[in-house]
Amino acid sequence: MKLKDVHLHPSERIDDLLTHELGIIQSEEVFSFSMDAVLLARFASIPRRGKILDMCTGNGVIPILLSTRTSAPIEGIEIQPRLADMARRSVYMNDLEHQITIREGDLRELYKETGYGAYDLITVNPPYMPMNGSDIKLNPHQAIARHEIHCTLEEVIASCSKLLRQGGKMSMVHKPLRLAEIITLMSKYRIEPKVIRFVHPRAHLEANMVLIEGIRDGKPEVRLRPPLIVYDEQGKYCAEFMDIYYGTNEDDQA
Amino acid sequence: MKLKDVHLHPSERIDDLLTHELGIIQSEEVFSFSMDAVLLARFASIPRRGKILDMCTGNGVIPILLSTRTSAPIEGIEIQPRLADMARRSVYMNDLEHQITIREGDLRELYKETGYGAYDLITVNPPYMPMNGSDIKLNPHQAIARHEIHCTLEEVIASCSKLLRQGGKMSMVHKPLRLAEIITLMSKYRIEPKVIRFVHPRAHLEANMVLIEGIRDGKPEVRLRPPLIVYDEQGKYCAEFMDIYYGTNEDDQA
Repeated sequence: MKLKDVHLHPSERIDDLLTHELGIIQSEEVFSFSMDAVLLARFASIPRRGKILDMCTGNGVIPILLSTRTSAPIEGIEIQPRLADMARRSVYMNDLEHQITIREGDLRELYKETGYGAYDLITVNPPYMPMNGSDIKLNPHQAIARHEIHCTLEEVIASCSKLLRQGGKMSMVHKPLRLAEIITLMSKYRIEPKVIRFVHPRAHLEANMVLIEGIRDGKPEVRLRPPLIVYDEQGKYCAEFMDIYYGTNEDDQA
Repeated sequence: MKLKDVHLHPSERIDDLLTHELGIIQSEEVFSFSMDAVLLARFASIPRRGKILDMCTGNGVIPILLSTRTSAPIEGIEIQPRLADMARRSVYMNDLEHQITIREGDLRELYKETGYGAYDLITVNPPYMPMNGSDIKLNPHQAIARHEIHCTLEEVIASCSKLLRQGGKMSMVHKPLRLAEIITLMSKYRIEPKVIRFVHPRAHLEANMVLIEGIRDGKPEVRLRPPLIVYDEQGKYCAEFMDIYYGTNEDDQA
């Protein structure tokens, strides 16, 4: 990796993104990305030109990975100052400041600044778990990333609806358990689900992840992509999963 | 097969249902069942006791297959007199008149006769294609079975909602293209999607069928079953598909 020198806080480390010599600042205590973010960054349909936004950007992993697939400007928005700072340092470290801008702020308020319909693609890896009053055994950084503390699924989708131009796309990774809610809310906010792909840990197990893309004011017609299987029968990564994960066929999804 | 003698009309033949020595009256001109109906009959969760209804029953293939999994009473409803008669003769031929009743009528009106909440399970393999004014190049029997001429998807789901008891299940087979509509309408009519399984012709191809089961007034939480793959890489039926199709593991879905 040819990365620029960057200041690291205690608990932080630099991980290899395993593609295009990119690195990322991570911290077990604060934020570290998961497979979900990588799969979303490969799954999203990249517009030929136009503006891209990544909501709930965390340490900026999705904008940094998306930068390998497009030269379009990419913004990331993150509500936690500690994470927005981490993301900015990762962008600087990868010398991507000409392409990626990290905003610190509330995604629900962004349209007031940008106006309606400002983006061509929005990616989002939102908190998966609703707030249900149960005791959350996480530190605040982790709790905000995983639970709907600062925004609900409905607020995420409603915000995408405001921020996307007509024909613009929203690409999300989430849990299949919440599929009915996701589809109902997307329809409610006029983001028509168009492409869905389920990720199964093994071929004979239930899906534990769903990749879903919708089009603002699109025509109702869903394409259900072949299942993505993570491990084969020997417990090794499947070839297609490896290709996607390491970005060797990163554009076959677009 | 030990079937009772039955009168056959011109164009009709008796096919083997390949399980439990059952037969079925078919006609290429009028109605013959597809793989979809067989998969639905295996996928549906059979209640321990209670009443079962099959909507759009056609030649009665689903009630006849369901009879191998339960001793509960099963009704089939069919709007076309020609098909209802064909279904009744198949029920008689298989000596299932003590368990299966075929109603000739409009599913939208049935609740007026039975009252609300009369059923514990409703299965339905509805017409897949909307009426869009395009020229339909089929005879009227086939057109009614495939296009939403006598009832729309919304009318099917709304009728299930009226006819199911609280906690009762609706099990449907349909096209993935219409998944967003299906889920939105189920939610609208308070049939919460609970179990979904996609059928892919091959592991690397898009799904061409979706099996979906919802619960009247259920809690929102979807289980996404492992994909069902029809053909293996050699072009032969996959083992699991064979087991389901021939009813050798017919209860593993329940």
